[in-house]
Amino acid sequence: MAVILITGGARSGKSKRAEMRTRAFPGRPVYLATAEALDAEMEARIAMHRARRGTDWIEREVPLDLLPALLATDGGGARLVDCLTLWLSNLMHGGRDWEREIKELAGALPRLKSPVVLVTNEVGLGIVPDNALARSFRDAAGIMNQVIAEVADEVEFIVAGLPMKLK
Amino acid sequence: MAVILITGGARSGKSKRAEMRTRAFPGRPVYLATAEALDAEMEARIAMHRARRGTDWIEREVPLDLLPALLATDGGGARLVDCLTLWLSNLMHGGRDWEREIKELAGALPRLKSPVVLVTNEVGLGIVPDNALARSFRDAAGIMNQVIAEVADEVEFIVAGLPMKLK
Amino acid sequence: MAVILITGGARSGKSKRAEMRTRAFPGRPVYLATAEALDAEMEARIAMHRARRGTDWIEREVPLDLLPALLATDGGGARLVDCLTLWLSNLMHGGRDWEREIKELAGALPRLKSPVVLVTNEVGLGIVPDNALARSFRDAAGIMNQVIAEVADEVEFIVAGLPMKLK
Repeated sequence: MAVILITGGARSGKSKRAEMRTRAFPGRPVYLATAEALDAEMEARIAMHRARRGTDWIEREVPLDLLPALLATDGGGARLVDCLTLWLSNLMHGGRDWEREIKELAGALPRLKSPVVLVTNEVGLGIVPDNALARSFRDAAGIMNQVIAEVADEVEFIVAGLPMKLK
Repeated sequence: MAVILITGGARSGKSKRAEMRTRAFPGRPVYLATAEALDAEMEARIAMHRARRGTDWIEREVPLDLLPALLATDGGGARLVDCLTLWLSNLMHGGRDWEREIKELAGALPRLKSPVVLVTNEVGLGIVPDNALARSFRDAAGIMNQVIAEVADEVEFIVAGLPMKLK
Repeated sequence: MAVILITGGARSGKSKRAEMRTRAFPGRPVYLATAEALDAEMEARIAMHRARRGTDWIEREVPLDLLPALLATDGGGARLVDCLTLWLSNLMHGGRDWEREIKELAGALPRLKSPVVLVTNEVGLGIVPDNALARSFRDAAGIMNQVIAEVADEVEFIVAGLPMKLK
């Protein structure tokens, strides 16, 4: 069914928009969190998102195995994946073959039965980063966004909480 | 009356666009500058903006007390606030309760009689900054932009001098 | 004839889009590369672009003298300039008068006979860079994008491989 990609900058209102799009589908919504509460900053952000979202969501922490989680929850309510950029970062830190995993995700998304709303970040619109690792990451994130956008049914770019329709 | 938010990156043509939008309203335009000429780089930029704008504007330096300045100039020509991002930075450096001041501004804007054109910056579309202070600032700026965009009648995102209508 | 500006972030799909737009014009396409293969990272990127593009392009390396190259190739197929941001960086490193050269390019573009598709980067949507050189560069790049966009017949902003029409 529907695959929706929501992209934008930090604190642009992407998650809020994605929650709204996910809730619009019938059934109990499923929240697939790629974030792990590894430090206080992250913990606070997770708590804030949860407070806004409400408690009626099915929640899963999926730092790495996103596609298995999508397959395991398929057939129920719509899934919100928040967010792909962090998933990519987790894959890279974990030494996983991220290029292959992105391709597998892109290949599987159009065949899922329940809707999927994916949040991602635009990270390539600043000055070229000094360090090579940050450059590799922004390259990888840009490629991932292109690959997922290509298979998505809808793509929205969020600025100041407001969506622009890309697809 | 009209509340217009103009957002975009550095040197994207935001100020020029905002000046044009402000001049389109009747009456003598009012320029509320949040910048202070603290160093040579800033001084040069202020001088450049002034040269382009022309000398027919009423000018006020408002590094911190933006809402009082908007109330004090209400009833005359349109006001141009350039820019909110620097105002936020000034509030944070000054130890002010910026979250409260943003909410108060957002609450007051729809009740003003004369038009207000506000310039702001998108700062969240690059790689995650290394230092925590920069991360806090970009989070705060993103939240501010969402809050002000929500009460604005019009929001434009400027890229390469060209506006995209967000609202 | 047609002057088309394609802008966007790193790895947003700008080059791919620009190649497609260039190929849509009749005649053998001309690739004007502003990149020089100075290190392994750059070499790999050049090789990747070339592999995607195919071998039927006329190729020229033009790190600095872009306008002479556009004049020399005028009258044949469409030209793809990839990219203006690197050209600007080369001009600045070479101690050239970049402001004058940008103006000359902007003045000449509308008078060319064969189409020109120009790729550029948005670099001003992140947090303010710490070092003054990076700030100068992003200011210069922003000004260049405005100046070229003003004379372009079409301007597209690419996000996640998808174009938004700016002009």
